[in-house]
Parts: sequence; structure tokens; C-alpha cells
Amino acid sequence: MKGNEALAYGALISGLNAYFAYPITPSSEIPETLAREFGSPEHPEFRAYLQTSSEVEAINMVIGAASTGARTMTATSGPGFSLMQEGLSYAAAMELPFIVVDVNRAGPGLGNLGPEQSDYFQATKGGGHGGYRNIVLAPNSVQEMASFPSLGFSLAFKHRNPVVILADAFLGQIKEDIEFPEILPDQLETSWATTGATPERRHLLLSLHLDFEDQASHTEQLGRKYAKIEKTEARSEEYMTEDAEIVLVSYGIASRLCRHVTNQMRSAGTKVGLFRPITLSPFPSGPLRNLADDGKKFIVVELNMGQMLEDVRVAVEDSTRVGFANRLGGLLPSSKEIAEKVETMRIGN
Amino acid sequence: MKGNEALAYGALISGLNAYFAYPITPSSEIPETLAREFGSPEHPEFRAYLQTSSEVEAINMVIGAASTGARTMTATSGPGFSLMQEGLSYAAAMELPFIVVDVNRAGPGLGNLGPEQSDYFQATKGGGHGGYRNIVLAPNSVQEMASFPSLGFSLAFKHRNPVVILADAFLGQIKEDIEFPEILPDQLETSWATTGATPERRHLLLSLHLDFEDQASHTEQLGRKYAKIEKTEARSEEYMTEDAEIVLVSYGIASRLCRHVTNQMRSAGTKVGLFRPITLSPFPSGPLRNLADDGKKFIVVELNMGQMLEDVRVAVEDSTRVGFANRLGGLLPSSKEIAEKVETMRIGN
Amino acid sequence: MKGNEALAYGALISGLNAYFAYPITPSSEIPETLAREFGSPEHPEFRAYLQTSSEVEAINMVIGAASTGARTMTATSGPGFSLMQEGLSYAAAMELPFIVVDVNRAGPGLGNLGPEQSDYFQATKGGGHGGYRNIVLAPNSVQEMASFPSLGFSLAFKHRNPVVILADAFLGQIKEDIEFPEILPDQLETSWATTGATPERRHLLLSLHLDFEDQASHTEQLGRKYAKIEKTEARSEEYMTEDAEIVLVSYGIASRLCRHVTNQMRSAGTKVGLFRPITLSPFPSGPLRNLADDGKKFIVVELNMGQMLEDVRVAVEDSTRVGFANRLGGLLPSSKEIAEKVETMRIGN
Amino acid sequence: MKGNEALAYGALISGLNAYFAYPITPSSEIPETLAREFGSPEHPEFRAYLQTSSEVEAINMVIGAASTGARTMTATSGPGFSLMQEGLSYAAAMELPFIVVDVNRAGPGLGNLGPEQSDYFQATKGGGHGGYRNIVLAPNSVQEMASFPSLGFSLAFKHRNPVVILADAFLGQIKEDIEFPEILPDQLETSWATTGATPERRHLLLSLHLDFEDQASHTEQLGRKYAKIEKTEARSEEYMTEDAEIVLVSYGIASRLCRHVTNQMRSAGTKVGLFRPITLSPFPSGPLRNLADDGKKFIVVELNMGQMLEDVRVAVEDSTRVGFANRLGGLLPSSKEIAEKVETMRIGN
Repeated sequence: MKGNEALAYGALISGLNAYFAYPITPSSEIPETLAREFGSPEHPEFRAYLQTSSEVEAINMVIGAASTGARTMTATSGPGFSLMQEGLSYAAAMELPFIVVDVNRAGPGLGNLGPEQSDYFQATKGGGHGGYRNIVLAPNSVQEMASFPSLGFSLAFKHRNPVVILADAFLGQIKEDIEFPEILPDQLETSWATTGATPERRHLLLSLHLDFEDQASHTEQLGRKYAKIEKTEARSEEYMTEDAEIVLVSYGIASRLCRHVTNQMRSAGTKVGLFRPITLSPFPSGPLRNLADDGKKFIVVELNMGQMLEDVRVAVEDSTRVGFANRLGGLLPSSKEIAEKVETMRIGN
Repeated sequence: MKGNEALAYGALISGLNAYFAYPITPSSEIPETLAREFGSPEHPEFRAYLQTSSEVEAINMVIGAASTGARTMTATSGPGFSLMQEGLSYAAAMELPFIVVDVNRAGPGLGNLGPEQSDYFQATKGGGHGGYRNIVLAPNSVQEMASFPSLGFSLAFKHRNPVVILADAFLGQIKEDIEFPEILPDQLETSWATTGATPERRHLLLSLHLDFEDQASHTEQLGRKYAKIEKTEARSEEYMTEDAEIVLVSYGIASRLCRHVTNQMRSAGTKVGLFRPITLSPFPSGPLRNLADDGKKFIVVELNMGQMLEDVRVAVEDSTRVGFANRLGGLLPSSKEIAEKVETMRIGN
Repeated sequence: MKGNEALAYGALISGLNAYFAYPITPSSEIPETLAREFGSPEHPEFRAYLQTSSEVEAINMVIGAASTGARTMTATSGPGFSLMQEGLSYAAAMELPFIVVDVNRAGPGLGNLGPEQSDYFQATKGGGHGGYRNIVLAPNSVQEMASFPSLGFSLAFKHRNPVVILADAFLGQIKEDIEFPEILPDQLETSWATTGATPERRHLLLSLHLDFEDQASHTEQLGRKYAKIEKTEARSEEYMTEDAEIVLVSYGIASRLCRHVTNQMRSAGTKVGLFRPITLSPFPSGPLRNLADDGKKFIVVELNMGQMLEDVRVAVEDSTRVGFANRLGGLLPSSKEIAEKVETMRIGN
Repeated sequence: MKGNEALAYGALISGLNAYFAYPITPSSEIPETLAREFGSPEHPEFRAYLQTSSEVEAINMVIGAASTGARTMTATSGPGFSLMQEGLSYAAAMELPFIVVDVNRAGPGLGNLGPEQSDYFQATKGGGHGGYRNIVLAPNSVQEMASFPSLGFSLAFKHRNPVVILADAFLGQIKEDIEFPEILPDQLETSWATTGATPERRHLLLSLHLDFEDQASHTEQLGRKYAKIEKTEARSEEYMTEDAEIVLVSYGIASRLCRHVTNQMRSAGTKVGLFRPITLSPFPSGPLRNLADDGKKFIVVELNMGQMLEDVRVAVEDSTRVGFANRLGGLLPSSKEIAEKVETMRIGN
């Protein structure tokens, strides 16, 4: 099964109620799969599927549906993700739980359909205005493409916060065997949802706080929520880091290449390991700092000009021990290139 | 003269040719002033002024005008800036020179009209897709509001890169005396501009690079440009930093408060100083690192939940020496709050 | 049951599959009723309900759904109906069957919510470009509001032509008892529909005919269809016309007033009758001409400045025998006003 | 000079201040010519030229500019004209003077670029809601394409009413020598215009009349205006009608063909004449009725399925004396076809 298809089925298994999006390669198998499944008696709870006239419309429909407590998802690629930034800021302020899938393509502007990781900043630092934070999940296998919608809805509803699944053109297209995740419980916490005006008008979701103190206390509350998420939800995976001199830091499709390099170099006796952030936001600084405290060196391998690199530098606090390897334009660095960087840094030790 | 008015006149003096925007408080005096001046015989080169039907349309008209080599500007606030992120990514890829003014308001979503600095990440890290970089200028006086359009056009055309002037609701509204800057030369470098199809079709501005190698070399070229900008265009201002134990790091309206605190505490004998980034992107890491090398401590004072803080941490590489003070929602911290942070950190020494 | 509600239920009973509209008074009870019923197990075939972002979008979604053979409806009032005119022209060219409900409000522009009949020309002559013809039904009771969706779908699919139900603010709001019509057969003729690309690509719905001969033969074919509809589908109702000297000609809400006047004047011995067009397009010229051949006189009673009046004049071919009574702005003429017109014309005999 | 170019220059000579449109063949030479002339010192009063993002936007910008008393024009073809119908209804209600050029193409929907006259109903009966009336001018030569903008602005401002110039693909493209019309006076009546809020707020242009009596008196006033226009502004041209047995009734490009047929048949001794409506709305019923009173017969020659035909029937009141000849799809009938119709009708006499 292709990664994009796995993600679509993963969303259905997680009880997806509504999907609004404008199709864009390399994410198109997601709407295609969902369109095929829409109306099937197997998914009675999948009640709304709409191809909107633009991504601006899509994110605003997501906001509308999510406001009712529905499990809502949209999927796009870079240009569409950019058009959603205003909506994402509103959604963050209204604390709405939903999933946005960004299947990263290459380059600013139109670019091309190749795999890049250049939307890292946009997803993790917030491409919209006002200093909010998304939860960002970075799958690196078709299995995780299938599982992360479930994890995403679970985190989104737990924290009332948008979740971004940041995939790439490669992950969307490769085929691997998968096991489907356990289904989510029927009931997630939606007591805050607006499900119809009542005499008491108990629920109001808004992002307007004209009074400065009111806005301040709202933003501070968001801040406390983000701090709690940072403390409790950061996820990462380590591979042969314990005795490693050099730790590759990499996520998504690049992390698979790095695992391959790790295996190769280990066979040759070089003490390399791999640290893979699974959540890009919150960034797993803690375990990375622990590795840094052991005196290890790091090479960040990203398919961009250096974005996660900054988060690694903040965690490691010693730029002399942080190297960088990348490729752009939809290309991947070769194992050899990475191995050479490792050797150079090791010798430099 | 109000800051927003000063900025509008500053743009006219710099030879503004075209302005496309959708008005939004707290930036509204900019379009109001330009509308009043449009058609005046004093500004014959100011040939296009249009209130567009949305910010998506505005940024795309900016792209169109800038493609012809015209000096083009738009102004907005957070929600509109978010809607421009797709266009900004395209513009970065096409290497178009123009100015976007973002008069930051408070909060994600609608928020309120108070001064905040919560669009820092969006402006400096790139709220759009694809890992490009804006040049970001942060005025802290009405004088700089008047001067930065000239500086902005100069940098934009020198590097063929969008320039963001990141102001705030406070700077837009305060009144101060100003001197107008010298006018820009009549001719900026526009040999790349598309000014009509010719048999040779010499000029083509595009952001589509279907071939991976082609996209890679395009992005690498952008990367070299950003590196050059980082090396040559970072600007900052230091105040009483030489013998300071504690250096406040602050920009925009917050930096004026910090200067006041510095003066107050110096009178009382405390060795405080102020480091003010003038360009937020490129971030003036170099001089900040020099101060860090002297063993100084830092307190970042921002009107957000901690954004420039990350750039400071990357530069200082020692989080134990980087403190943080902020206020949210359109409010400013009191001098006393900042002074107390300084004292706490000093004693903690 | 209100007229608008009756219409909504009438559509559901007729097997409505899809509804796309932007709500506008005085038609709002239609989307409200349909929204309430959407998702109910009683209407499993009602698969799509969408509040679009504008009426331009609504009509284009109607075109999309109708192209698949789905029973599709939209409802609006004057301003929205105007925005749909481009789409209606395309739909006419593609020969798509669907229902548009126009609950006529008063006045050009925004006007007000009162009952008028000023969209008669727009509906019957075609407000869009290119000289196509809609089938236009004019209900004059809540019972007909309930029955005409069924009649409308039946005519629409029989002739592959858009059907307009032209109601008014009064009919939409009054409450009367109704009996629901028999349900439509499960299968209407949809062999022309586009239900997925196939190797043979048998079905193509388009409105582009670059070749002049091709366009000519396409339009001629439409012309033959319109002629056939004119011959076979014109519907009207006569009341006490046989021995009448003066025949009121009136449709919709105005016809109910005219029936009341007829009854009143008959009681007083005046030989008045009522001719009510049920289809406004095709206009029932034949029976009207028969009455004219008997030497009768006519008074057209309309809530506009004189639109059906032209069709009556074309049929009667003697303007000295065609009088006119009207009221505007959402007002109705009084029985007395109409009775006086009758007396004046009768005496004028 | 091409007809479209002549029209553009005719508008400039008439003091055009503002042009807003989305380009569409076969009207594209109009915006092309105006774009070339925009900014020229010869037309200092031509202050706004904008290619809008759609025709909906274009007509609303026309409304905005016309509200200030500016001489405003837009040009389009059928599909764009349809998108303008909502705006035209609002403009009629607000009684705004401006010119819309519709260069009629063939067919409903996309159709093709051939000359047709199928937008007759849409232009003359009002394609928008609410029963308003446009003034509609039908040029039949490049000379009239050049002169009618001047006539159009003159009529528009005299009656505060939108004017449609209904041309066709043929007229837009043919080349003929022309003389430019006299320029319009500098000052047209614009005392009603909204040129800035004042303490007294004297001018308000609106189309909302919530009170029924208020709307009624507004519409009645429009009705009186339309009646006055009908009485004073109907224009037509007669050619050899005096002793004609058969009168061809034709406008626009078709009328030129009819003149040719008239000349041919006159040479052969047949008593044929030509009646050409110059204003299609108001329709010149009076002179046509006079010809009918003389017992003449008529053949309507139109490039549609029979639209002006209805206005001729209303005027003549004897369908046995009204014949019809047409061609569709962008084709013209041959002289021979028309001559045969004439012979058939003459013999039928």
C-alpha cells in the first residue's frame, strides 16, 4: 500500500467524519482514496467529503467542522499549506482539534514534486501570525503514515490543538506492508464543541479578545498548554546511540537513509548512531541534550537548507559539535556523502 | 507625524511606483496616507494604488508589479500577512524585490489591535513553504518608520529579495518628529525585469523547476544569496554594552522600554546594556556572540512567548546565561518587572 | 406547513441527491429544512448538502453534481439568482437536468423581502447569455410548492433541461395543509451522464463548439427541443373563463388574489374569469389565444412593471384588449383596485 | 481601424476616466487598446485601468467608480456579461451611469467566437433580478463603434442609467474608416455623486429599501424614468421603407447584410425595405407600428433563435405578417436565403 493510501485508511479507521481539501500532488492519493471510500457502508461516520475551490476555503471548512467536535482532516502540499496559514492561526486561537497533512514537495514557489523537508519551519514555528504552536508528527514509514492519523486525533482532542502530519513526496509514494492501528475510542472529549445554540449559549469558540488583559490571559493559557505538551508529548527514537561517537539527527524519509548509513558504518566498525525526532514540535530536546552531555557529536541530515539544525543547536549548545548534511530539489544525499561527513567529523575530534 | 504616516511618506520619497493592499488596523494610516497622495503631481512615479479584494490578491498583484522592476509595496497586519504566505514563497523563488509591511497586532486569530511581536517567526523563518528567507527590518522609532522604506527598497533590489518591515501597533500610532531620508537613486538594478515579450524572450521569472537537479541548483543559489546577506547585511545597535554584566536583547517597541530601563538601572549603578537587532533576518548573531564570549548574561525582552529567544540561544550557546521577560495581549512589561529580572539574574551570578 | 418547508420536503420525496446553495431570505427555510433532514436514515439517497461560499460556486457545484445524473437542487432569491446566470447558460448548453428555486423578493439591487414577480423576464427569457430557455414553473399554493419539485425533476430529466421554480416571498412563508405527491420512479433517464472515465469515453458534457457549423447544429438541436417543450409542456388553469367578458391573467401569489376578486365580482354578477399560467416558460399562448379569438378582454395582474404582459400581448395581438394592474415594492394591489380596472375595461367595451 | 479599437478610442475621446474588466475574446482589442493608451499625456483624465480577477469584481468596481461621477466603462462577452448581472441590477437600483460593452459571441455556455445576437434578451429585458431596464445601443458599423461611447455616456448621465453597447464578434473585428465624434462637454450632471462624506451626508447611493412603500415609490420612480426614456430615446433608421411591401427588421451586423439584400432585390424590382433599430431598449415600437398600420409585412432577420422577434410581434400585433430568418453558431444567412424568405412572404400575400 502506498503511504498516501495508508494515511487515508488510517484516518478512516480513526473515525474520520469530515474531509475538506483541494487536491495537489504529491498528496493526491489521499483525496482519491477517501473519495472512493466515501459513502461506503463500512464508514457510516464519514459524513462529509468536499473538494473545495481553494485551500483558503478548505481550512475554513475544517474550522467549521472541527468546531462541532467532528474528526476533521485536510491534506495538501506546500503551496496549499501556505494558503492555510491564516486559518491555522485562527484554529490555534480557538483551540480546535484536527489534522492537516502536508506532503512536502521541493522548493519555494511551485517547485517540483520531489521529496524535501523545507516546510519544517512553517509547520513547527507556525507559518501563521500570532505565535501559536502546532503539534507536528513526522512519519518515516508507510506504517506510521497509517498509524499517525489515530495518534494525531488522539493528541489533537487531548490538547484541543491542531496537529500537522509532515510527510514528504517519497513517503507518500512508496509501498510497504502495514498493520492497521487499533481504532480510537468512540468518544473523544468534545464537551467544548458548539453543537447548536441553547438558551444558555454555553459554548462559544472565538479568537477575538479586544481587551488586552483578556488576550494576555488567553495567550498565557495557550502558553501553559504548549509547555505541558512540550513536557509530555515529545517523542523520538534512538538507534545505536549508546556508544556512538557521532549521532545522526534526522527525521522522515532522510532518517531511513541515515539508518542505512548507520548499519553500513557500524559493519565497518565506526561508532555511529541515529536520533530520530518523531514529534518535530514539541522538539525532543531533552534526550538530545542527554546525548550531548555525554560529549557526543551530531550531524543533522535534512532535505533543506538547515531548519531542524537550529533546534538541534539550541539543544546541544555547542555549534562545534553540530555538523550538517543535506540535499535539495527533491534529491537525496548519497550514503557516501553522509559517511564522509561522519568520517570528517570523527577525525576532527 | 504618526509612524504609519511616516512610513507612507518614506515610501513615496523612495520612489514608490505601486501599492496594492487590503486595509487592516493597525496599519490603516498607511493606505489612507497613500490614497490621499495618489494622483498628486508631486509623485508622478506613483502610478498604481489599489485596494484589492483580499490579501491573497494583494500579494499576487505585488508579484506582478515587482516583476516589471517597479518599486512595489503592500502593508498589512497579522491575519493579512498570513494570507500572503503563499505569494511570499513564490516571490522568494522568483527573487522579486518589494516591501511588505506587517504592523503586528496581538494574539493568534483575530486577536486585538495592541502591540505584540508574535509574528517574529513568521517573518524571519518564513511562514510560507519551501525554506526561503525574507530580509526583515525592525524599526523602533517614527524616524526609522520613515527611513526603512528607502533602506528596504535598496536592500530588496540589491539582493533581489522581498523585504519585510516588521512594525507593531504602537510604532504605527505614536507621533515623533522626523527627518526624511535622502532619496534613492532614480535607477536601481532591474535588468532582470520582465518588461514585455521580445523575440529573444530574455527574461522569464518563474518558480517551477520540474527537474530535480535544476531545482537543487536554484535552491543552492538562493542559499548562497542568503549566506551572503547574512554575512553583509546584519545590523544591530549596542547601548552601554561594553562593561555591562547583563545585556538586554530587544527590538522594536520593546527595545525603547529596555533603553529606558537601562538608563534607570545605570543611574542606580547596575551594569546593564542593550543589544538591539535592527535586522531580525539576517539575525546579528556575530556581535551577540562576541558579547557572549565576554561572559556576559542576557535577558531577551519580547512581546511574545519567546521567539527571538531561540535565535539568541543559538548565538549564545549557554541557556543558563539567557533569561526571558515578556508580556502578551498588547500589554508591555513594566520597567520594574524587567529591572527585577535583571537583579535576579545578576545575583544568580 | 410553510411553503418553503413544503418545497424542501417535496424535493426529498422526489429523491433529492444533492443540494448546494448560499442561504438568502426569503428562501432560508429551504436550506434550514434540508439541513435538519440531512443525514436522516429516512433519506439515504440525500447524499450531499453544502452551504457554498457564494451563488457562483453553488450553481457550478450543481452543474458538477447534475452531470453525474444526480437529482440536484439549489434555492436562492433575486441577487443570488443573478449570480447564477453564467452557470445557467452553461447548464443549458450542456443540457443538464436540475432545479433552481428562485423565491422572488422585491426590487432590483438589495430591495426587500416582500413578494414581487420582477424576476419573470430573468427566469423566462434567460438572464444568461446565448439565447437558451429554462422551463419555469410558477406555484401558487403550498400544495404546489410541495408538488413542483417532483414535477420539476420529472420535466428536467425528460428534456435534459434546467427547471426554475419561481416562487415569491409570500408563498415561501404562508402555511397551508398539503398532501405530498407520489414519489418519482427510482430510475430517471440518465444514460447521458458522466459517471467515470472509461476506455471508450462515451460521455462528454461540454458547451464549447469552436466550429461554427458544429455550434449551429448544437443550437438548432436546442431550438428543436425548446419547440417540442413549447408544444407539449405548457400548463395553465382556467377559472370561470367560459362566459367571461374580462379575463384576469395572473400567476403565483397574485393569481390567488385574482381568484378572490373573480369570486367577489361573479357574486355581483360581473362576468370575470381567471387564466393562470402554471408554466411561465413555455408560456401557454395557445389557450390564451383561444380566449382572445372569442373576443374577450384581458387584464394582466402582476407584481412588477409589466413583464408577463409582453407574452400576453404577443398571444392576444390586440393591445386595446389588454389592460394591466400591478403593485410594487412587496405590496399587493387591493381587490378594489383590480375590480375597478375590470369595471373600467368592461365599460370601455 | 478595427471596431473594437474604434470603440476604445471613442471612449477615450468621450473622457473615459476608469476602465475595469477581465479580458475575453472577441472583445480583447478593447482592453489592449486602452492599456496601450493608459498613462499617455494625451488622456490625463483616464486615471484608472484595471484587469480585475473576474467579471463579478469588474462590475462592482465599475459601480464604485461610477458612484463618484466618473465616466466608467467595462467590456466583455457573453459569459462575462452573465457574471455581471447581479451588479447590473444593483447599478440600476442605484441609478448609476456607465457603459457596459458586450461583444456577443455564439452559443450559450462557452460557445465560440463567431458573431451571434443571442444576448438580446439578456441586454434588453434585464438578465439580472428585479425588473430594471438598461438602455441598449446596437452599432452596425465601425463608425458607430467609435461614436456610441460618446452617445452612451451622454444618455447614461442624462438619465442616470447603465447603457449597454451590444456589439458582435464581426463588428469588433472588421476594419473601416471612421471619423471621430465630437468630444463630450467637460461637465456632465453629477450632482448626485458621492464624492466624500460631509457633515450633511447629502449623497447616499443605495439599493436597499426595507420599507415596502419606500421600495414601491422607488420602483415607480424608476418606472417613470423608463417610460420617459421609451418616449424620448428610441432610435431607428429606415431604408427604402416608404413603398416597401416587405420590410426587413434587423440590427447590428445582420442589418448590413439586409441592406445589401434590399439593394439587390430593389435592382430586380422587388419592393423591399429595411427597418433598423439603433436602440434595442427602448425598442422603437412607434415607427414600426406606423409601418404595420400601412399594411406592410415584416421579416425579422436575427442571429439567434428569435428574440427581437417578440418585440416586433408586440409592435405589429399580427403574427401572420411577421416572418423570421436566422442563422446560428456564428454563421450568417446567405443573401439568397433572405431573398427567398422575402419572395415566399410576398407571394403568400
